[in-house]
Amino acid sequence: MSMISFATGNTNPETFPSDAFADAASVVLRGMATALNTYPGKLGHEGLRRLMAQREETRESVAVDPDHILITNGSMQAVTLAAEAFAPNRGDIVVLEEYCYVGSIRAFNAMGLEMVGVPVDEHGMRTDVLGQVLDRLAREGRKPGFIYTLATYQNPTGAVMPLDRRRELIALAQRHDCVVVEDNCYGDVHYEGEVPRALYALDPDPRQVYLGSLSKIFAPGVRLGYLMARPPLLERILARRNDAGPNTLAAAITHAYLHDKLWQHIAMANAALKVKRDTLLDALNRHLGNACSVTRPAGGLFVWIRLPDDVDPGRLKEIAAGHGVDFAHGSDFHIRNDAGPYIRLAFGYPTVAEIETGCERLGAALREARGSASR
Amino acid sequence: MSMISFATGNTNPETFPSDAFADAASVVLRGMATALNTYPGKLGHEGLRRLMAQREETRESVAVDPDHILITNGSMQAVTLAAEAFAPNRGDIVVLEEYCYVGSIRAFNAMGLEMVGVPVDEHGMRTDVLGQVLDRLAREGRKPGFIYTLATYQNPTGAVMPLDRRRELIALAQRHDCVVVEDNCYGDVHYEGEVPRALYALDPDPRQVYLGSLSKIFAPGVRLGYLMARPPLLERILARRNDAGPNTLAAAITHAYLHDKLWQHIAMANAALKVKRDTLLDALNRHLGNACSVTRPAGGLFVWIRLPDDVDPGRLKEIAAGHGVDFAHGSDFHIRNDAGPYIRLAFGYPTVAEIETGCERLGAALREARGSASR
Repeated sequence: MSMISFATGNTNPETFPSDAFADAASVVLRGMATALNTYPGKLGHEGLRRLMAQREETRESVAVDPDHILITNGSMQAVTLAAEAFAPNRGDIVVLEEYCYVGSIRAFNAMGLEMVGVPVDEHGMRTDVLGQVLDRLAREGRKPGFIYTLATYQNPTGAVMPLDRRRELIALAQRHDCVVVEDNCYGDVHYEGEVPRALYALDPDPRQVYLGSLSKIFAPGVRLGYLMARPPLLERILARRNDAGPNTLAAAITHAYLHDKLWQHIAMANAALKVKRDTLLDALNRHLGNACSVTRPAGGLFVWIRLPDDVDPGRLKEIAAGHGVDFAHGSDFHIRNDAGPYIRLAFGYPTVAEIETGCERLGAALREARGSASR
Repeated sequence: MSMISFATGNTNPETFPSDAFADAASVVLRGMATALNTYPGKLGHEGLRRLMAQREETRESVAVDPDHILITNGSMQAVTLAAEAFAPNRGDIVVLEEYCYVGSIRAFNAMGLEMVGVPVDEHGMRTDVLGQVLDRLAREGRKPGFIYTLATYQNPTGAVMPLDRRRELIALAQRHDCVVVEDNCYGDVHYEGEVPRALYALDPDPRQVYLGSLSKIFAPGVRLGYLMARPPLLERILARRNDAGPNTLAAAITHAYLHDKLWQHIAMANAALKVKRDTLLDALNRHLGNACSVTRPAGGLFVWIRLPDDVDPGRLKEIAAGHGVDFAHGSDFHIRNDAGPYIRLAFGYPTVAEIETGCERLGAALREARGSASR
C-alpha cells in the first residue's frame, strides 16, 4: 500500500504540457547566448514581466506598469524581500492572519519578526479585530512593519475576503500608515463565483504591495513568482534584492511557452483541478459523514476541515499514516502552532482515483480515532 | 561609435553551447512533469548536487557529501544566506578584504552589517593584519559573525592567496572560533599555474563554509550557485532558507547538458577566455605604456589597474565614456567606497576585436586625462 498524500500544495502534473514546454524551450534557447551570459538586472525578464502585467490588468481591470514588477524565485522570495524591506530588524512586527501559510510563518520566525495574529473566519481576516489590533499597537507605540494577508483563497482556510472587508482593511492601513503585503499566490486558480478585486486594484496607494506567482497556475519547479510595488516602496524592496537577479533561463522558457496561451492554460488546468476538488468534496461527504465541517473552496488547492471535538488532529494523523493517507496538521499553519481541531487537505497533486481512495482511508482512520463508541 | 564595456563580470557568449544546451533541454523536459509540479526541497536538484560534489572532489582531492550542498539562486543567494545565518542582527560584524566584490558589499550594507576591512595585496588578504584585526575585536568584546574571503582570483584584484596565508587564516579562525565563508565563485576559471587547495579542503573544521557557482564557468543566466556547509552550521543555514527551494528547471537542464562534459566545457571556455586575457594584457601594454601597473590574473575575469597618481579614476571614466569605452571605478569595490587610484577591467564578455579597440580608446582617454604635459 503506497501512501496517498494530501499534505503539501504540489500542483497537478497531469495537466503539465511537458512536450509543448520542451518544444518551446528548444526554440527559445537557441537564441539566448547573450541573454544567458549577462546578468538579468534587478527586475528580471522583460517579456515575463509584461505578461504578468497583462495578467494582472486582465483580472483586475487596472493598468499595471511592467517596471513595477520584479520576478522572484517563487513568491516566497517575494515574501522575504518584502519582510526585509518593511520589517528589517529582529523584533519588528508583522500583523497577519493567525492561520497562515506555513512557509511564510517559518520565514518570519527565522527573521526574528514578532507575529501579531488576527483571527480568520469563512470570510478571511477578521477586519474588525484587525482594527482593534492596530489601535492597541498604536497605543503601545509599536508600529507594525506591514500587514500580511492572503485575501483570496486564503491558505489554509480557502476563504475569500469579501469587498467590504477589503475596503475596511484598506481604510485601516491608511489610518495607521501601514504597508499591506497582499499574497495572491493562488490567484487565478479559480473554480466558480466572483472574486473581489485585489487590494492593490482597489487602492492606488503605493503602500499596497502585491505578490503573485506562476507556481500554482503553471508549476512550482519553474520557481517564478513576482512582487509588484510602486515607488517609493519599490526602491526599498530593490535595495534588499542582492541575489544578482532572477532566473533568466526559467523566465525565458516559461514566457516562450505561456505568452500566447496563458488564459487557455489556466482554463485547462482549472477544469482538471475542479474535478479533483469536486471528487474530494464528494468523497469526504461520503466517507466522513457529518462528523466534520468541510470548506468548499472557490479557488486554491486546499480543503480545510474542522474535526469533531473528540478527535485530536495529531492522533488522527498517526492513525491515518497506518491507513496509508497523509495530510497537514492544522497547527502547522497557526502562527504559534496552537493546536486547533483542524486538518488541511491539498488536492492538486493526487489523481482522482487517489483522492477517492485517500478519502476512504481517511474515513476509516477517523472512525478508528473516534473509537468504537462513536461508530 | 558603440560603447565597448569592460565594466561588468558578464561571461563569454561566444563559447556558450546554445544549440546543444537547447537539445539537452528538449530531451530532459519531456520527462519532468512530476519534478516540476512538486517542490524541490531545501537542497535542490540531486543530480546537480552530485555533479558539483564531483567537481569539488576533482579539484580539491577531498570527499564531498552531496547532501552538504544546497543549490542557490547564483552564489549571491549563498552569500546572503550565510550572512543571515552567521550575522543575523543589524550591527553584526563581517571581516573581509577591504577591496571586495561590489555585490557582496551592497548585500552586507543592506543587511546593516558592520564591515571590518583587511587590506589586500598581490597575495590576497593580508593575514598578518587579519590577526591584528581579530585581536582588536576580541579585546573590544566584539566577536565577528564570520570572515568573508575570495581566496582565489580575488575580485577585483585577481589575487590568489598562497598556501601559507591560507594556513594562517585557518589558524586565526580556529583561535578566534570564527566561521569562514570562502567565496570561490571564480573557481575553475583558470589559465595557468598552481592554485592552493580551498580552505574547506585544507581544514576539516565545519566552521569552513564554501560557496561555488556555475555563473562563471557556464552562464550567469542559469542562476545556479551553491553553498557547501557541514553540520551543525548546515542546519543554521537551512533554517534561513525560506524561498521554498531552488530552481528545478534550471538545475535539470544545466545538469542534463553538463553532467558528462563538465571539464570538457570548462577547458574549452577557459581556452577562449585566456585568449581574451592575453589580448587585453598585450593591448594594455601597447596602449597604456608603463604609466600604469597592471595585474596578470591567473584566473577569473578581471584585470586590476593602478593608475598614475596624476589621474583620477572618476575623471578618467568620464573621459573614457567620450572615447567609447567603459570600465569599473575601483572605489565601487572598496567597502567604504574609498577613492583609490584603481580601475577594474572585465574581459569575459567583449570580443577579442572589441578588447583591442577598447584598449586603444582607453589609452587615448588616459593620455587626455594626463593632459598635454604628460604626453
